[in-house]
Amino acid sequence: MTTYLGYRAGDADTAWGGFFDPRMAPLPGHVLDALHHGPQADQTLLDLASAADLLDDGHHATETGYGRLGRGGFTVAVLTEMPGVTPQMWDWWFGWHGSDARRYKLWHPRAHVSARWADGGGDGHYVGRTSLVEEYLGSAYTKAAIRFVPPEQLGLAPHRRGDAVAVCARLGSSELPVDIGWLVHQVRPTAGGAEMRSRFWMGGAHIGVRHGNLLANSMIRPVAARQLPDPRDLMVHCAQEMNHLAAFLPALHARFG
Amino acid sequence: MTTYLGYRAGDADTAWGGFFDPRMAPLPGHVLDALHHGPQADQTLLDLASAADLLDDGHHATETGYGRLGRGGFTVAVLTEMPGVTPQMWDWWFGWHGSDARRYKLWHPRAHVSARWADGGGDGHYVGRTSLVEEYLGSAYTKAAIRFVPPEQLGLAPHRRGDAVAVCARLGSSELPVDIGWLVHQVRPTAGGAEMRSRFWMGGAHIGVRHGNLLANSMIRPVAARQLPDPRDLMVHCAQEMNHLAAFLPALHARFG
Repeated sequence: MTTYLGYRAGDADTAWGGFFDPRMAPLPGHVLDALHHGPQADQTLLDLASAADLLDDGHHATETGYGRLGRGGFTVAVLTEMPGVTPQMWDWWFGWHGSDARRYKLWHPRAHVSARWADGGGDGHYVGRTSLVEEYLGSAYTKAAIRFVPPEQLGLAPHRRGDAVAVCARLGSSELPVDIGWLVHQVRPTAGGAEMRSRFWMGGAHIGVRHGNLLANSMIRPVAARQLPDPRDLMVHCAQEMNHLAAFLPALHARFG
Repeated sequence: MTTYLGYRAGDADTAWGGFFDPRMAPLPGHVLDALHHGPQADQTLLDLASAADLLDDGHHATETGYGRLGRGGFTVAVLTEMPGVTPQMWDWWFGWHGSDARRYKLWHPRAHVSARWADGGGDGHYVGRTSLVEEYLGSAYTKAAIRFVPPEQLGLAPHRRGDAVAVCARLGSSELPVDIGWLVHQVRPTAGGAEMRSRFWMGGAHIGVRHGNLLANSMIRPVAARQLPDPRDLMVHCAQEMNHLAAFLPALHARFG
């Protein structure tokens, strides 16, 4: 199967094709602030072990920003404000987009190349499944396996809590049996819609060989560390895709949800 | 000959000296967007082999931005909107500025240090000639040989096409017989003036030893790659110099063109 960025002739001939828009809005001001700030003090950042703190009311010291963690890893946080969106729309989106590259491309038209489920199945749900994607992070082309896990696994039980939704995944390679990080997208209602609080924990102790052991992990970490994205590229990518999709997610969900 | 940045006592005592202005305008918003975006997916960027696509109507997926290309190289694109400017003014400028450092300094008063033609000649034309310049790219001081080539060499025949002008050059060192890249500045009329679409292809396969062979190229590439500018510095420099000069190019051309 040929993979390529963007839509080519015929790709828009689907019921949802009219939602493909290669023009992306500039980054929100708070993301620019975070880029200008540069790396943050780790004590302002959330540890994976404290992921459950995302269930608390209020906001964290760093809702958008990035910084190094111990042992060579880093974390990225992105806040996306989404008027008119509900958390349930995102829950639907994660179960809907991964079975067709033309859906996946709606999300980030300048970076998303292909998507399919490792189980070969269609849409409808995502927890417990692995999404195999090809995408750019900055200029780096990556072939990733995104294994969606029950939020309970990160202490965020349950999957839906009141009106909030938490999307959690182990991030790894689709070519090698190596995982390199974790992500959480916590989506909760606000007065005018919803806000997404994204967190990535990458590299360092978060690198692991699938079905491996401590020795394999210690050997693979230096190699896998070279495959990590630049934290700025990851922050920009996340902010771009979430803002881009949020602008038409209510309309998309109204038609296909 | 002493070289230095900026004008010193007496340097402005020329017919054009009144145009020297060390104050530079802030970067346009679309250049800031590109800096914030960071490296782009290579599939949104123009290959050197497709340079002739600049002759098409419309705009490319990336008119301002930068990203890595295969084999260690990178490309930079900059769009400069220039009210009141015509493409022919730029054609004149490229033949006029290179014979006197005091002219060259008008263009980027914070980065341009010296300029002379390798043939020792005066002004009037540039295609087929080599401009030897010293300038800063970011904090890096570079001594460059800019060998202007006929646009036909990059598939952009002819030099002037209708009202548009293409300025094309091989970029290299003035101290070593090594080239490190290519540039195109395509200038075409717009409703209110002209727009310049600059493209640089640097490093990787674009490094070559002048009058060398494949073996020399493969040996010199790793060394030459360390001399490459940061793509962000190159993008900023280009946007600054083109916007700066464009603000007074019509007046300069009216007096000296």
